[in-house]
Amino acid sequence: MAAWSERLAGVRGVLLDISGVLYDGGEGGGAAIAGSVEAVARLKRSRLKVRFCTNESQKSRVDLVGLLRRLGFDVSEGEVTAPAPAACLILKQRGLRPHLLVHDGVRSEFDQIDTSNPNCVVIADAGEGFSYRNMNKAFQVLMELEKPVLFSLGKGRYYKETSGLMLDVGPYMKALEYACGIKAEVVGKPSPEFFKSALQEMGVEAHEAIMIGDDIVGDVGGAQRYGMRALQVRTGKFSPQRRASRRAQMSQQTKIDPLQGGLCGAADILMLSAKPRAPLPSALWEDVWKKMSRRSFFSRPFRLKLRGLNTGSKRSYK
Amino acid sequence: MAAWSERLAGVRGVLLDISGVLYDGGEGGGAAIAGSVEAVARLKRSRLKVRFCTNESQKSRVDLVGLLRRLGFDVSEGEVTAPAPAACLILKQRGLRPHLLVHDGVRSEFDQIDTSNPNCVVIADAGEGFSYRNMNKAFQVLMELEKPVLFSLGKGRYYKETSGLMLDVGPYMKALEYACGIKAEVVGKPSPEFFKSALQEMGVEAHEAIMIGDDIVGDVGGAQRYGMRALQVRTGKFSPQRRASRRAQMSQQTKIDPLQGGLCGAADILMLSAKPRAPLPSALWEDVWKKMSRRSFFSRPFRLKLRGLNTGSKRSYK
Repeated sequence: MAAWSERLAGVRGVLLDISGVLYDGGEGGGAAIAGSVEAVARLKRSRLKVRFCTNESQKSRVDLVGLLRRLGFDVSEGEVTAPAPAACLILKQRGLRPHLLVHDGVRSEFDQIDTSNPNCVVIADAGEGFSYRNMNKAFQVLMELEKPVLFSLGKGRYYKETSGLMLDVGPYMKALEYACGIKAEVVGKPSPEFFKSALQEMGVEAHEAIMIGDDIVGDVGGAQRYGMRALQVRTGKFSPQRRASRRAQMSQQTKIDPLQGGLCGAADILMLSAKPRAPLPSALWEDVWKKMSRRSFFSRPFRLKLRGLNTGSKRSYK
Repeated sequence: MAAWSERLAGVRGVLLDISGVLYDGGEGGGAAIAGSVEAVARLKRSRLKVRFCTNESQKSRVDLVGLLRRLGFDVSEGEVTAPAPAACLILKQRGLRPHLLVHDGVRSEFDQIDTSNPNCVVIADAGEGFSYRNMNKAFQVLMELEKPVLFSLGKGRYYKETSGLMLDVGPYMKALEYACGIKAEVVGKPSPEFFKSALQEMGVEAHEAIMIGDDIVGDVGGAQRYGMRALQVRTGKFSPQRRASRRAQMSQQTKIDPLQGGLCGAADILMLSAKPRAPLPSALWEDVWKKMSRRSFFSRPFRLKLRGLNTGSKRSYK
């Protein structure tokens, strides 16, 4: 336990990824990940500040929050940092008029943006909207500009829906980068500006914050490069094989903690380690302890470590 | 002229790119580029060996040759090196069963290939076939393989149709590479194996051959890396602005000749410089000379150099 409490010392704020951590998208809106509704509620009841930091770019914030609330989550629009509103700010600041290659579900976020006579391209996770015709149109707009400017709302490689893995916006960003010989500006994780704005909204410094996500690049690597801590959950697109191969390709700088669970487990660890001023209520300990006793919940080395804890329980944890 | 005859000394064989050099594709099959039908005919009448080396992967060789013949070109199937037949050879040699993301027009080339229970993916210029659904399917097949193998028939960024620039297979190759964290195997230009097989069919060594194309990477850079000479024509997707910006991104190894015309001009230069055993017939000189006298045909520095030639003509070439 010592290691975790050291690693998480001084954490005051938690940024939660949404897709793959809270829920998996899919038919009928998708499904909450087991234990995550309760975990969000517990984190919000704790002394930790909680904010949601997503690269979701198929839905407007209103629609996303509506969906999450229907799935049982306690979340409001003001608690969500998302790339489309961030992109709108940048477009206004720089006087840019975008050609939009985005999902119909997020188009309303750009209602106040002038899209006539475009002088840049904005792409987001357009899903079926990534047709050859639409990609070619975005390409042609870029090629006609003297200095092509491409914004990509995130650069995720893929995400998980209930039906399987789905291509995210990142591959299409790479396609346009290659076709035009340019480099896109990423609005969303892992861009430092994006983490910065989420932390500012939460009123927490980077060194006091932890990011919890299922993406080793966008969530873990990005947060760590910005000076935050990070935890990768074992839900969403997580897969041990893919993590190992991805790990080999990543910067040596990205530190990956050896223990991860779903958001439910991560919440337990956070609340155990965040050193509350008052002792943890015994009911909470009991709850945590019950979960830990499930073989599949924590790794065996961690369960063995836990044996040392004085809990009064005589049960054996294999 | 000395410079050109030195640069082209010992050239015995010419590889001709097809799209953007012979014709621009588009509605109704496309249109021959001005002067190229005649240029091919002249090159084939000369002592130079001529072969066609294309990354065309929307059409089978049969269909491509049929189209070119309808446009007036003297070309037969046996003279064309194309990526789909080359890919079939590789698949057979390595016992691979592809999932095909290709244009319907080229599917017949894979008729003899087992595509059941795929253990690799082959992508080609699928045009409208590059839907989100089809890309996602190819992605999912790759992600389910322990060692994902992706073949890309060429890696061109874009090509020119009569209606404008169109995305080629390269951007989609990059998209799948990024999504899966892999590197594709390119079958087609600029792959050395592809140039090798074209030269073997022609019976000419690399140092005796020149590639003529409109793509600075696939044609010029690729051929030069394989030890061939290369000429970039000013037709097809060529644009001086794009060449300048592309040039800056390229390896210092790629040498770009300061003078290019369409295939018609390139053929003139080749035939003037290839040192025929017998003197050039005066009719041919007359023909070349007439073309050179057009202001737009050659660059001004080149026309000034030509003044030194003793032709008996008193006309001034600005």
